[in-house]
Amino acid sequence: MKVAFIGLGNMGRPMARNLRSAGLDVTGFDSSTEARAKAAEDGLTLAASAHEAAREADVVISMLPAGEHVEALYLGDAGVLAHMDRGRLVVDCSTVAPSSARTVAEVALARGIGCIDAPVSGGTAGAAAATLTFMVGGTTADVERARVVLEKMGKNIFHAGSAGAGQTTKICNNMLLAIQMIGTSEALALGIASGLDPKVLSEIMKQSSGGNWVLDKYNPVPNVMETTPASKGYAGGFGTDLMLKDLGLALAAAVSARASTPLGSLARNLYAAHSLAGHGALDFSSIVRLIGNVEG
Amino acid sequence: MKVAFIGLGNMGRPMARNLRSAGLDVTGFDSSTEARAKAAEDGLTLAASAHEAAREADVVISMLPAGEHVEALYLGDAGVLAHMDRGRLVVDCSTVAPSSARTVAEVALARGIGCIDAPVSGGTAGAAAATLTFMVGGTTADVERARVVLEKMGKNIFHAGSAGAGQTTKICNNMLLAIQMIGTSEALALGIASGLDPKVLSEIMKQSSGGNWVLDKYNPVPNVMETTPASKGYAGGFGTDLMLKDLGLALAAAVSARASTPLGSLARNLYAAHSLAGHGALDFSSIVRLIGNVEG
Amino acid sequence: MKVAFIGLGNMGRPMARNLRSAGLDVTGFDSSTEARAKAAEDGLTLAASAHEAAREADVVISMLPAGEHVEALYLGDAGVLAHMDRGRLVVDCSTVAPSSARTVAEVALARGIGCIDAPVSGGTAGAAAATLTFMVGGTTADVERARVVLEKMGKNIFHAGSAGAGQTTKICNNMLLAIQMIGTSEALALGIASGLDPKVLSEIMKQSSGGNWVLDKYNPVPNVMETTPASKGYAGGFGTDLMLKDLGLALAAAVSARASTPLGSLARNLYAAHSLAGHGALDFSSIVRLIGNVEG
Amino acid sequence: MKVAFIGLGNMGRPMARNLRSAGLDVTGFDSSTEARAKAAEDGLTLAASAHEAAREADVVISMLPAGEHVEALYLGDAGVLAHMDRGRLVVDCSTVAPSSARTVAEVALARGIGCIDAPVSGGTAGAAAATLTFMVGGTTADVERARVVLEKMGKNIFHAGSAGAGQTTKICNNMLLAIQMIGTSEALALGIASGLDPKVLSEIMKQSSGGNWVLDKYNPVPNVMETTPASKGYAGGFGTDLMLKDLGLALAAAVSARASTPLGSLARNLYAAHSLAGHGALDFSSIVRLIGNVEG
Repeated sequence: MKVAFIGLGNMGRPMARNLRSAGLDVTGFDSSTEARAKAAEDGLTLAASAHEAAREADVVISMLPAGEHVEALYLGDAGVLAHMDRGRLVVDCSTVAPSSARTVAEVALARGIGCIDAPVSGGTAGAAAATLTFMVGGTTADVERARVVLEKMGKNIFHAGSAGAGQTTKICNNMLLAIQMIGTSEALALGIASGLDPKVLSEIMKQSSGGNWVLDKYNPVPNVMETTPASKGYAGGFGTDLMLKDLGLALAAAVSARASTPLGSLARNLYAAHSLAGHGALDFSSIVRLIGNVEG
Repeated sequence: MKVAFIGLGNMGRPMARNLRSAGLDVTGFDSSTEARAKAAEDGLTLAASAHEAAREADVVISMLPAGEHVEALYLGDAGVLAHMDRGRLVVDCSTVAPSSARTVAEVALARGIGCIDAPVSGGTAGAAAATLTFMVGGTTADVERARVVLEKMGKNIFHAGSAGAGQTTKICNNMLLAIQMIGTSEALALGIASGLDPKVLSEIMKQSSGGNWVLDKYNPVPNVMETTPASKGYAGGFGTDLMLKDLGLALAAAVSARASTPLGSLARNLYAAHSLAGHGALDFSSIVRLIGNVEG
Repeated sequence: MKVAFIGLGNMGRPMARNLRSAGLDVTGFDSSTEARAKAAEDGLTLAASAHEAAREADVVISMLPAGEHVEALYLGDAGVLAHMDRGRLVVDCSTVAPSSARTVAEVALARGIGCIDAPVSGGTAGAAAATLTFMVGGTTADVERARVVLEKMGKNIFHAGSAGAGQTTKICNNMLLAIQMIGTSEALALGIASGLDPKVLSEIMKQSSGGNWVLDKYNPVPNVMETTPASKGYAGGFGTDLMLKDLGLALAAAVSARASTPLGSLARNLYAAHSLAGHGALDFSSIVRLIGNVEG
Repeated sequence: MKVAFIGLGNMGRPMARNLRSAGLDVTGFDSSTEARAKAAEDGLTLAASAHEAAREADVVISMLPAGEHVEALYLGDAGVLAHMDRGRLVVDCSTVAPSSARTVAEVALARGIGCIDAPVSGGTAGAAAATLTFMVGGTTADVERARVVLEKMGKNIFHAGSAGAGQTTKICNNMLLAIQMIGTSEALALGIASGLDPKVLSEIMKQSSGGNWVLDKYNPVPNVMETTPASKGYAGGFGTDLMLKDLGLALAAAVSARASTPLGSLARNLYAAHSLAGHGALDFSSIVRLIGNVEG
């Protein structure tokens, strides 16, 4: 099976590498010279343009920074969809607005091209280890066709619904994650300020009705868990500015669906303040520093 | 072992019953005639006053509505502590301000009486089934002495720290629970308004970084889980007004510790608005109705 | 001077009437049969289409519900701008996203057509009495040219900056208004719940550092001021759903400018909850009912 | 008329000086040696204790940091009230919880001593210039008796209601002020991030429905108004930590009255985060720095 992989950044490059290691015939492209050079070091076959990469491909996979890049790649007379054969498949792994994903899918389906939105969670570590989670929107037939490539890059593949549903699911999940990260930070900071040991408090809440993924895997207080970003100066992990981007997408979706997200909106604004204060590159668990004094 | 049980309401009565079923010699008291009548139906031995119940008891257990009742029971010349022998033990299971719990403990310890604060979670169902969770503050020695009675009323006994730490832990946990309940409601309502199936979305988030106790056990959307209050018209469970009380304690603790709890404060205000709109007696998961249109 | 007036709804119809009363040669159009019938009753000259109305006009004024209508009217090959002569002037009084206003202005200016965005405040009463406030974005020359028509429909004409600045200013102002409406409601509800007389409290805050336009003109508590919507069952005035629309535009602008608006976002969510509860048609001061019990 | 003035700090000292300048017979006391020394430099007559100062006084005025100091001064067997003659008058100018003010008033009135709570706004500048605003709670008779001394220290004297009403009014006003300061900061920061000139935007909103005291007197953006703290590096004025204290009192009052204050609570948490980040001593308008990038 021939695969075109467009977007060879921090996420796309290891994903393409895993496809190739699994024996697929992968041709990559990235508009950045630096990204192409790094991919060449990996031994990836490179094309001179997205069009050249896509021309012969059975499946076109994309992993791009934002909706404008995805729309520029696929739509319009100069877009890739206008030059692909019927029956091929598009798998967009970028995180973009659901409306943007639906637009791309509509154009593709009208041309007889399959199309799914398949944003990921798991970060660069998950990309490298092929343990990403995919939240997928599209027809059941297209999702099943995509499974053979998705399985080589990730571990969990969730079919969330029709076109755009993958994006909506990721937005909902990440909004809830942000709320839980800040909520957990508040509970721990209040406990610390009141004299509790954050390890003991974390352990109790984890086993009680306050339990959540953050307490299980990603405690924001330094030295409560050994391997968290919190215990490494909030380096690595999932950056504050990436969370801020996802929360912006969540808010835009809420405004457009006339939905109410009081905690989600507040979470976005707290992350915006944290980023404004210069901490955009720190892991998103560093928001605990905006909440309380939690370090020794 | 002789036990005095003060406060035989919806929680205290089944707790006292479980102690008696376990073979302890329990004498109860409640200031309400109706509560005493119900306890008598259960076959519980009753005293004419809290003092009479406490006089001969090795352990005095209390389960009262608020801090003012706890302080009135234990403190002052007319309080029970002034008339108990050295070496006895007090176990207060009420949910009160940590400062109130510390005041009672200080007076008790100064008189040579052991004292722990042991607020519970698990509700009336947990009280009936002897599966309550206790979050306990006090000295290790006192907590160990109390274990024999706590084990007859509950399943998990967490030692959170010194006097007041049980209350602080419960407050932190329940604030986080409220945040997660509202956050989960927002994510699900946004998903529904965007065309997702709440069952599918819940299942995906549960296995992802949005996972939490609410998604596991207490989904706020009707008919996502069979046995939740949401699927029974939000009857039963843990009432909105009880959650509002706990969030009030959390805020008071935050103001007094100069801690910052932006999501926790907002959660309290949303519960206050929900209660004001006449829904104080509904289960606390009914807050989802304030957030979005989630029913059929 | 020939004027085309596109959009003859509750706002546009009285605005067009005032232009005609002032002696201008006005031709109107609305896509709704009902709106056209009402305008005919007013004696307004009507065209068969927006294009016909605009063809001979020196100035095209529009007052439409949302950005999609404005873009459909002006942009594209079928849009009015493609068929207007150089040197004419467009005055869009609709409330739309600043980005939408900028797009229209860019297309107009590229074709040698003047263009300003001039959203209004003052409601239907201000439209009828020709006392609207205009917040205007565009070049100084275009704003000066427009002044002769704006003055016939309003009292205050503020030049806020270049294209789109009128929309941004209106969005900022209305977001602040919403915050002050809810903040004033909270202060008054807290005072009432604590035993204060809302008239006395309003009077003191009005003269102190809590003073604002809401206390001066639009007190949300019934019977504090005689002529407010609050004293007439929250009928009339500026509807909850209109405020919700403006707050949605403010949030979208904040996300796009990466700005932080914690109180503004929360205000939107409270208005969304109020609308969801069925109060979208009530005046926006009725939000006080979500905050507290303020009626007798 | 003999006046005792207890509490000669940054506010109390200039207030006592103004009373003396107006010809009253003032005896002062402060528990701090340094404060006594400064007052002596002013030429104030000093007593050796609060009791000695109060013994002969017709009116006892107090200006203390917090409720615990006020209660310690007045209540209990060692308190001043226990040793004052019937018919005297107590005027407490401290900012404390309404419940605390009511407790002091009840004890005073039971002993036949008049008592009003009279917290101030206007800061140290208002104290020096005798232009303070007093928000007063108490009986009409006591307020009228106090007027002769209040008029020598301030300009506006508002009778808000019965005992405690002065405190409640100040809390409500300052909560609304904090909301307006942050709301104005959000509107201006959003405008700036969208390309508007903050002077122009401020001027327009001031004359529109966004108008408020902050825009009139205390613009948080540097160089919009010449004499604001914002234009002097946020030095002087009303400190962040003082606003945080008042917001803490507002929240405690809201919890105790079961009132809902979503924006007020969020305002407190934003001020708590600002203080935590090390800006507690800056003027409260510096909160704009948490919201956006507003400086050159």
